[in-house]
Amino acid sequence: MSGVVVQNIERADAETVRRLGECGVATVHEVQGRTGLMAHIMMPIYKGASVAGSAVTVSAPPGDNWMLHVAIEQLKDGDILVLAPTSPSTDGYFGDLLATSAMARGCRGLIIEAGVRDVADLTKMRFPVWSKAIHAQGTVKETLGSINIPIVCSGAYVRPGDVVVADDDGVCVVKLEEAAEVLKKAEARIANEADKRKRLAAGELGLDIYDMREKLAAKGLKYI
Amino acid sequence: MSGVVVQNIERADAETVRRLGECGVATVHEVQGRTGLMAHIMMPIYKGASVAGSAVTVSAPPGDNWMLHVAIEQLKDGDILVLAPTSPSTDGYFGDLLATSAMARGCRGLIIEAGVRDVADLTKMRFPVWSKAIHAQGTVKETLGSINIPIVCSGAYVRPGDVVVADDDGVCVVKLEEAAEVLKKAEARIANEADKRKRLAAGELGLDIYDMREKLAAKGLKYI
Amino acid sequence: MSGVVVQNIERADAETVRRLGECGVATVHEVQGRTGLMAHIMMPIYKGASVAGSAVTVSAPPGDNWMLHVAIEQLKDGDILVLAPTSPSTDGYFGDLLATSAMARGCRGLIIEAGVRDVADLTKMRFPVWSKAIHAQGTVKETLGSINIPIVCSGAYVRPGDVVVADDDGVCVVKLEEAAEVLKKAEARIANEADKRKRLAAGELGLDIYDMREKLAAKGLKYI
Amino acid sequence: MSGVVVQNIERADAETVRRLGECGVATVHEVQGRTGLMAHIMMPIYKGASVAGSAVTVSAPPGDNWMLHVAIEQLKDGDILVLAPTSPSTDGYFGDLLATSAMARGCRGLIIEAGVRDVADLTKMRFPVWSKAIHAQGTVKETLGSINIPIVCSGAYVRPGDVVVADDDGVCVVKLEEAAEVLKKAEARIANEADKRKRLAAGELGLDIYDMREKLAAKGLKYI
Amino acid sequence: MSGVVVQNIERADAETVRRLGECGVATVHEVQGRTGLMAHIMMPIYKGASVAGSAVTVSAPPGDNWMLHVAIEQLKDGDILVLAPTSPSTDGYFGDLLATSAMARGCRGLIIEAGVRDVADLTKMRFPVWSKAIHAQGTVKETLGSINIPIVCSGAYVRPGDVVVADDDGVCVVKLEEAAEVLKKAEARIANEADKRKRLAAGELGLDIYDMREKLAAKGLKYI
Amino acid sequence: MSGVVVQNIERADAETVRRLGECGVATVHEVQGRTGLMAHIMMPIYKGASVAGSAVTVSAPPGDNWMLHVAIEQLKDGDILVLAPTSPSTDGYFGDLLATSAMARGCRGLIIEAGVRDVADLTKMRFPVWSKAIHAQGTVKETLGSINIPIVCSGAYVRPGDVVVADDDGVCVVKLEEAAEVLKKAEARIANEADKRKRLAAGELGLDIYDMREKLAAKGLKYI
Repeated sequence: MSGVVVQNIERADAETVRRLGECGVATVHEVQGRTGLMAHIMMPIYKGASVAGSAVTVSAPPGDNWMLHVAIEQLKDGDILVLAPTSPSTDGYFGDLLATSAMARGCRGLIIEAGVRDVADLTKMRFPVWSKAIHAQGTVKETLGSINIPIVCSGAYVRPGDVVVADDDGVCVVKLEEAAEVLKKAEARIANEADKRKRLAAGELGLDIYDMREKLAAKGLKYI
Repeated sequence: MSGVVVQNIERADAETVRRLGECGVATVHEVQGRTGLMAHIMMPIYKGASVAGSAVTVSAPPGDNWMLHVAIEQLKDGDILVLAPTSPSTDGYFGDLLATSAMARGCRGLIIEAGVRDVADLTKMRFPVWSKAIHAQGTVKETLGSINIPIVCSGAYVRPGDVVVADDDGVCVVKLEEAAEVLKKAEARIANEADKRKRLAAGELGLDIYDMREKLAAKGLKYI
Repeated sequence: MSGVVVQNIERADAETVRRLGECGVATVHEVQGRTGLMAHIMMPIYKGASVAGSAVTVSAPPGDNWMLHVAIEQLKDGDILVLAPTSPSTDGYFGDLLATSAMARGCRGLIIEAGVRDVADLTKMRFPVWSKAIHAQGTVKETLGSINIPIVCSGAYVRPGDVVVADDDGVCVVKLEEAAEVLKKAEARIANEADKRKRLAAGELGLDIYDMREKLAAKGLKYI
Repeated sequence: MSGVVVQNIERADAETVRRLGECGVATVHEVQGRTGLMAHIMMPIYKGASVAGSAVTVSAPPGDNWMLHVAIEQLKDGDILVLAPTSPSTDGYFGDLLATSAMARGCRGLIIEAGVRDVADLTKMRFPVWSKAIHAQGTVKETLGSINIPIVCSGAYVRPGDVVVADDDGVCVVKLEEAAEVLKKAEARIANEADKRKRLAAGELGLDIYDMREKLAAKGLKYI
Repeated sequence: MSGVVVQNIERADAETVRRLGECGVATVHEVQGRTGLMAHIMMPIYKGASVAGSAVTVSAPPGDNWMLHVAIEQLKDGDILVLAPTSPSTDGYFGDLLATSAMARGCRGLIIEAGVRDVADLTKMRFPVWSKAIHAQGTVKETLGSINIPIVCSGAYVRPGDVVVADDDGVCVVKLEEAAEVLKKAEARIANEADKRKRLAAGELGLDIYDMREKLAAKGLKYI
Repeated sequence: MSGVVVQNIERADAETVRRLGECGVATVHEVQGRTGLMAHIMMPIYKGASVAGSAVTVSAPPGDNWMLHVAIEQLKDGDILVLAPTSPSTDGYFGDLLATSAMARGCRGLIIEAGVRDVADLTKMRFPVWSKAIHAQGTVKETLGSINIPIVCSGAYVRPGDVVVADDDGVCVVKLEEAAEVLKKAEARIANEADKRKRLAAGELGLDIYDMREKLAAKGLKYI
């Protein structure tokens, strides 16, 4: 089912998205039962970026970035482009011109299971990208793909409109219909961690805070 | 044909080399028909370096850095060392002492399809290296290689005197005899991009700027 | 032999450990006959960290970080946690809460042949980690491992109490019983290098400083 | 959503499944628009196996094969087990005892994005497995996963009951609801290829059979 | 500690070694608490080989096979060569001439965390090799290594005289002093499995044979 | 320089090619100074094939096999197709139809730094392929490449007409102009090895046959 552009997709509430971004990847991943993570090969091109947005998905052929031009027209403020090639590629599908265009449409970042280039410029522009490679390799514009269909990107299933959270720990996908519930759990977890952090900083042990000693002994742990 | 040092190699004009460096890897790669790139595994040891120079090539055995000492004597101001091991290696062939020596000869950087070490020092010295690994692993000085013979380095064919351009996007090789022509095209491309960048920043779409809509429709793209 | 915690381990003299850290990974590795290095895939989560400490070893199941809680109780000031999973894993065993706890016990860093998360926080806390992956992937607490038994971590054999030196060049292990001798050789090597660095900076060639020309000629090196 | 076993899943018609298996992976993949393929790392443990079956999906923790025992109870004649770990693993989740049990339930094979062991026995039993590793590494039985939920296995999205086709070229997934249509196209393609094979064997060129010369010339191909 | 040949090493009883070989890698690995396995990248050059022997260890520089000649003199009937390079290599250290020589000394196979060549000949000779690569790449004879010192080979710690078991599932190391005890457990496990295999073949489920249902329910498994 | 088909290339003498093939990859690689080998990732799709032929080179875009149709017209009896993609790809460029066509033109095999499919059929047809992947992934026919230009294939520089030798040990390239000289050396080496094989089989040691003991002692080898 190649050659399709789905134009009107549902998106999560902007405030929900924003606050999911503040929770961060590790927390969001944990509270949704340790699901939704992309593989660890998806690395940010610069450290310190932390974003969340609604996925505009791109299925594109290897070494062909034509569909990115098509995708940019579909972007709304707060969106994140998520591109999976139809077969493995490390080519540089995206550079500073496309980033300029995407930013002009309100795009918050790019997740791409392939390569990216012009990373010095992208860093100056503060346009964050998570990719599996940095490479100058150019691409062609010959073969159709699709926009806003469900894709598998670096091991995660992503549907258009799903919330994508990305920071230095990687990329996590939250299902659109679960976004509010996940946010609630994530914020509760963070509140709960603040107290633990204090106790741990004061020298208390996780063994005691989490009551682990008995369970460890029951499993047979021996101290020598 | 191991054990040979070719001493007098031709080099490109210094001004051409300098300006190719300013054009950057992605542009240079594009204008020479998307050729000359090394593989994406060649990463800079620190971000932000951007250099160009004439290749002094080194073919060296795995885990043996003897030939680097031989190569340094052949360096002239503005050169870049390009080392390919004769079989795969991630050993640290090069560190701060060799960098000190190379810099004293005017060397602008090292491209090595193997490992490098002392990277904290090299970063302080601002001696840029593109390598496939960072590793402290030491090497021996037992077996001959060759200097200034054609080599294959990380997928690219490099002849002594070819121009090497390297930045955060990777490493690209320009044939010595094509350097002037490539520069001309690269500078033209950059001039041309400035206008497009402005239009894209103003919200115009690549679909329109590049007249893509008709071609996409002809290929069968469907909007839903 | 899983499910064992060895509690009283011998450690090297604190001053010896500190000075080994100052010598750095490349030097220490060289003077112990180019042994003790972990594989180059062990990369720091941020650049510029440079530490040494006594190894508290952790053998843990894949995707299970329970034993890290057990290990933290065993930490003394100046220790470094060294974790090897019992089968390959890139999961994020360790994050900011565990780091808070470890720091409260005087821990200087973590070496882990697996993943780590919360790296933005760890970077702010200046808690250095060398890992083979950065990944938010959460872990369980179900299966025992062992603390302070000999382990193989990323190709290096590590016994509890061995000195671990880590910097931007990787990670090197020094046998507890050889620490003093290795330090002596390392400091001698550094002293010796200072003079060479000056001569190389002044333009002298390694070929001359190390008397290589004759040996190269004997091997058959030809200058053309 | 871990810890769930979905018991009554829909399956494709047995005859459709059988004939899809005869069409083979490459053909099935082509006729569904080049979709549904798993990554090339999924290799058969022995050459020459060629199967199709209905997917019983298994989502299992890394290094924990407990859910395979749960899955086997859900198998019906003609099913194929498809296991994706919740984080990367090469452990040997499956060996000759589990294969004996699965075969007793009519299972036709295993697709596992992890490791398998006892491959000499599995080969003798002619129980085909496509895996990303062969490894004796044992697993635990401590943590729940789920059976018959949608999973991502080696880059492909697999829902319970989808048809899985596997042979020496890899593994392809056909959506349950598209199975009949895909079969029709696949058999048509095969019929069409027979004639082409004859003409090509007789020395006719693809350039002529597929009328490529004009299109190549239009693109600018030059003969020298 | 390079440049050492330890000549008189202890070996396990020949009958114990032979029977460990019959137990196979998966069983031996299991009964020693899931320890001793090399990484899954160590693959046999042909299928169906299954051997056990006493380790004669070789620590050799990258791309230098000199020490193999030294090692062969140390071989006794029933030994297995185990080579780990001092830094990563895929070079072909070993071919049919060395195999001829090793076989003349009673050697049963080679385990090498590097490359091997002449594999068509080795297969005809039925000299089994487990390696991480097959490659014709030649090596030099310039730098010393050591024979019969403890080494780390593909993640496993191997001491001279330890028993090495290898088959299609990989390679497992048994400590010399534990060989008799491990054999006892391994043979007991095999006896125990025979009954289970029968019951599973008859259609009984592992869920019942191993009494898993209650534990699964207690963990919260839900059937839908 | 894409979009070019060089039609009349020089080839080596057929008898020279045939005898180079009989010498095999390891020997040919050795006698040309250990040069010309492709990387070890190039594996045969079935064991036991051993071929030599004149290279018809193909430079093709990632995921686009159009140029293979163009290349087949250029084949002469005894040729071998050598394809390098212009950026990394594991797609299945080549299957049984193209093999049928290539065989009809006298082609002896395919060397491809990408993927191949229909390997069960290719094996039955005895059409040997060395590739870096086996994958059913289909390709498009949209973008030009070139035929019979120099390429870098898996680390080796290949010019049209160079002799390619391939067997279970990998792939080696012999420069057209050196083919006769390389053959002479290769056959001499083989003759020389026959005698050594006999002596080694009789129990003589390489240490003695190659007179290594003195040199080892001079390097400092110690027997304990």
